[in-house]
Amino acid sequence: MIVDNRQKHDNPIRERLYEIIFEADTPGGKMFDVALLIAIVVSVIVVMLETTNNFGARYHDLLLAIEWILTIFFTVEYLLRLYCVLRPWKYATSFFGIVDLLAILPTYLSIFLAGSQSLLVIRVLRLIRVFRIFKLANYMRQGRIIMLAMRRSAPKIAVFILFVTLMVVIIGSIMYLVEGGVNEQFDSIPRSIYWAIVTLTTVGYGDISPVTDFGQFLAALVMMLGYSVIAVPTGIVTVEFSKGPKAASSGDQSHVNRACHSCGKEGHEYDANFCKFCGAHL
Amino acid sequence: MIVDNRQKHDNPIRERLYEIIFEADTPGGKMFDVALLIAIVVSVIVVMLETTNNFGARYHDLLLAIEWILTIFFTVEYLLRLYCVLRPWKYATSFFGIVDLLAILPTYLSIFLAGSQSLLVIRVLRLIRVFRIFKLANYMRQGRIIMLAMRRSAPKIAVFILFVTLMVVIIGSIMYLVEGGVNEQFDSIPRSIYWAIVTLTTVGYGDISPVTDFGQFLAALVMMLGYSVIAVPTGIVTVEFSKGPKAASSGDQSHVNRACHSCGKEGHEYDANFCKFCGAHL
Amino acid sequence: MIVDNRQKHDNPIRERLYEIIFEADTPGGKMFDVALLIAIVVSVIVVMLETTNNFGARYHDLLLAIEWILTIFFTVEYLLRLYCVLRPWKYATSFFGIVDLLAILPTYLSIFLAGSQSLLVIRVLRLIRVFRIFKLANYMRQGRIIMLAMRRSAPKIAVFILFVTLMVVIIGSIMYLVEGGVNEQFDSIPRSIYWAIVTLTTVGYGDISPVTDFGQFLAALVMMLGYSVIAVPTGIVTVEFSKGPKAASSGDQSHVNRACHSCGKEGHEYDANFCKFCGAHL
Amino acid sequence: MIVDNRQKHDNPIRERLYEIIFEADTPGGKMFDVALLIAIVVSVIVVMLETTNNFGARYHDLLLAIEWILTIFFTVEYLLRLYCVLRPWKYATSFFGIVDLLAILPTYLSIFLAGSQSLLVIRVLRLIRVFRIFKLANYMRQGRIIMLAMRRSAPKIAVFILFVTLMVVIIGSIMYLVEGGVNEQFDSIPRSIYWAIVTLTTVGYGDISPVTDFGQFLAALVMMLGYSVIAVPTGIVTVEFSKGPKAASSGDQSHVNRACHSCGKEGHEYDANFCKFCGAHL
Repeated sequence: MIVDNRQKHDNPIRERLYEIIFEADTPGGKMFDVALLIAIVVSVIVVMLETTNNFGARYHDLLLAIEWILTIFFTVEYLLRLYCVLRPWKYATSFFGIVDLLAILPTYLSIFLAGSQSLLVIRVLRLIRVFRIFKLANYMRQGRIIMLAMRRSAPKIAVFILFVTLMVVIIGSIMYLVEGGVNEQFDSIPRSIYWAIVTLTTVGYGDISPVTDFGQFLAALVMMLGYSVIAVPTGIVTVEFSKGPKAASSGDQSHVNRACHSCGKEGHEYDANFCKFCGAHL
Repeated sequence: MIVDNRQKHDNPIRERLYEIIFEADTPGGKMFDVALLIAIVVSVIVVMLETTNNFGARYHDLLLAIEWILTIFFTVEYLLRLYCVLRPWKYATSFFGIVDLLAILPTYLSIFLAGSQSLLVIRVLRLIRVFRIFKLANYMRQGRIIMLAMRRSAPKIAVFILFVTLMVVIIGSIMYLVEGGVNEQFDSIPRSIYWAIVTLTTVGYGDISPVTDFGQFLAALVMMLGYSVIAVPTGIVTVEFSKGPKAASSGDQSHVNRACHSCGKEGHEYDANFCKFCGAHL
Repeated sequence: MIVDNRQKHDNPIRERLYEIIFEADTPGGKMFDVALLIAIVVSVIVVMLETTNNFGARYHDLLLAIEWILTIFFTVEYLLRLYCVLRPWKYATSFFGIVDLLAILPTYLSIFLAGSQSLLVIRVLRLIRVFRIFKLANYMRQGRIIMLAMRRSAPKIAVFILFVTLMVVIIGSIMYLVEGGVNEQFDSIPRSIYWAIVTLTTVGYGDISPVTDFGQFLAALVMMLGYSVIAVPTGIVTVEFSKGPKAASSGDQSHVNRACHSCGKEGHEYDANFCKFCGAHL
Repeated sequence: MIVDNRQKHDNPIRERLYEIIFEADTPGGKMFDVALLIAIVVSVIVVMLETTNNFGARYHDLLLAIEWILTIFFTVEYLLRLYCVLRPWKYATSFFGIVDLLAILPTYLSIFLAGSQSLLVIRVLRLIRVFRIFKLANYMRQGRIIMLAMRRSAPKIAVFILFVTLMVVIIGSIMYLVEGGVNEQFDSIPRSIYWAIVTLTTVGYGDISPVTDFGQFLAALVMMLGYSVIAVPTGIVTVEFSKGPKAASSGDQSHVNRACHSCGKEGHEYDANFCKFCGAHL
């Protein structure tokens, strides 16, 4: 595998950088990933603290400094990623490539546009890639089983969501007719539909609630309906889980962290010989 | 099939209209369905916007104009449906026939009776028929599996709802006795029953909540009860789902969009030779 | 069966009364049960309306009159039940015998003690017996399947409830320490435990909610915990449901309404020859 | 077994004490456990009542007296446990040893530090050990089945919680951007994340809720998401439950209450000959 890489990369520095930044198997790669993990978590916490009254106002300068240092670190990392990947454009347009870019842009944007720093929380998405450093093959397999069950449930869940959407439109409109005149909380159909969703999903804020006798009677019916309807997605997902992971859990787990040398994407099947995104030999 | 229709229809214009309006297999039929889909969605959004303060007041005349144009379009469509179906009365009294009529009446009613436009949201039900244009055989089968599981769960769910109803009547009355005098929110047994439903279904608006120590103790018991009881419908539906779709998923899917030429109803079994609603040859 | 009864009852009037009041197979018995059903429902609605401001104040005399008429009807019925049953004491101390008595006492009590009428809602429990008139063998079987699954889940649910109880005591106490001084809503440990139950069961009234940063952080943890914990009773009940009803659904359903002639109790197994409560021959 | 113990203990008083305090099979041991159970429950109720306005103020001296008496009783018991166990240090550092110590410390602490009594509720954890006196082998087995299913679900639940955490961070930040300026309830990202958790878990206090149209639209999407996502832990746990307890339910139940004579720990397998914590012969 390593030999393979050496053959492709004519430049040993790019080759070494690739190993450190994209892979987690070498000591250098692992150390880099740990540093990245800490930097991301610190960065997200800093963004959060900036918005609070207690910390944000008092330590404003300190937090801003940390934010800029980390942003420059992430920028350098992003440029190095572009440099050491064989096909930079493929990486730049991949999911993680876009996330990596979006994770640094808001800080630069904030020079011109105040308040855009909050967008930096998108950095948490970068954590997904960093989790590989833990070599938690078991956890990754579990995550894949969950994803698989959810993907298999998707068509049924989609039909169910459509059905619920039609239902809340009709329920919301009826409640608007019933409560609209009396209760100023139900001041439009969209707001009544919002109420219907809040009620049917059993969230129940109470910011909007019926006050008339008939409205409360209808609301009680909607709740009883929601009580029965909540069982449907649970039933769907449970059955998909019980079907078992099959393909997902079998096979060789050793190359689960493999990243393509051309486009830098991960997630290749265990028996894949070629990158399924760009076609390069793995 | 087409030959069959030609034989039945002596009038080629009616025959052609039938193909466009009721079927989705020809290019004309597909285009008509897409237009209908857009018209319905636009119309429902217009009805919603009319009730909001922002748009409803400012663009009142524009929204009213769109509503009338679409209503006239739907009226013409309804009359054409009546014209091209072999047995108009059968269609007019079918589920979709009634929905089609109810979807145009409120606008005319609004001339005499202000506020009745809100009833127009019933138009969303028309979307169910229009979904066939997407030829999403898989999604329709999924929807049928869900319906099947829910229909098979129905007797158990009905018994469960009855059981819950008896429970909330008794819980509500006890809470009225406990909180009634102290807490003016529990001012009658029906309102206390409403509270019991809000609590047992875990919606929990908070518009009515116990204030006495004993009342809060009882409420806590009710919640623990609801916690265990919510498992019952989920268990019922999950087991029905796990039994599998069987009959529903097998069979030929190609004629799933077939509509009877006599009464215009859909939903015929795959092996049906005659309309199950009016007996006409399919 | 009828011959059997005739042999036991030396008095043909008692025999005939028994058929009408306790059984639902003869025309007279069915008519009596329908009348009883209506009387119970009317009576419960009257009790509810009495507590409302709109109806209760305006039609007070009318509602009081209906209540007294129905109470006298139920009293006569109770005395006749005692008269026509072979072993009155067995009936009077059975579940339904006690419910029948409790369903008439509050009206008489209200002469001395105002407000005790609310207790009359216990009459809804009488509906359970009356449901047999619908001959809904299928629904009764479904109800029995649900009861069976719940009874089989009971030990696990009991352990789970105990576990949840220990959990809410500890969570409530911690929140009292955290929020107690700042937030007057958390003014005692019992009230904090009440909050913990409201949160863990996802009811979430909002009458008590944390205001400090640390309190909200802890509350978020509790919610995530509740999110995972709510799965447990559902999993328990679902597995019990999936085990199937077995014994409950098999067997002869024809005598499901049989009531013992000695003690008036129902619910005998299909192959029972003797009353399982008093040992009399069925 | 008893012979075994006699051999190990050279002192018959320590031997007798061990039987009474640690075991529940002899009449003395059972009586001691019942006394302990009552003392713990009374003590926890006293701690709770002390914090309430009604009782805490009025009966302050009485409650304080009971608390001190019970604390001295628990202290003596703790010292006796240390005395009669063969390896006191092993017991003192075991889970129950630490709980036993933590259950008495807060009262002594309260001399110097007012308010620390609330920590005494940790005493409820002691109840777990006392439950053995009920000899509820069936309930203990059920509890073990639940624990087993939860432990087997743990990796999947952990991945799921991680996924939900990433989700609420992003949702909370978006809502902060949308509602932040208009709605002072969304005054920081951490508070918006708190709102996202309250909403996604369907708790829905209503202390923080969106007021803008777009904010309510996003909130509705989050609720629909939460509606589908709540199915995942349920599906995971249900499948684990349906796999059956296997090892947990088989085997000999008679020694389920066995406690090691060296370290005092319980929970040994049925076929264990040696303590799995300290290696002593059972």
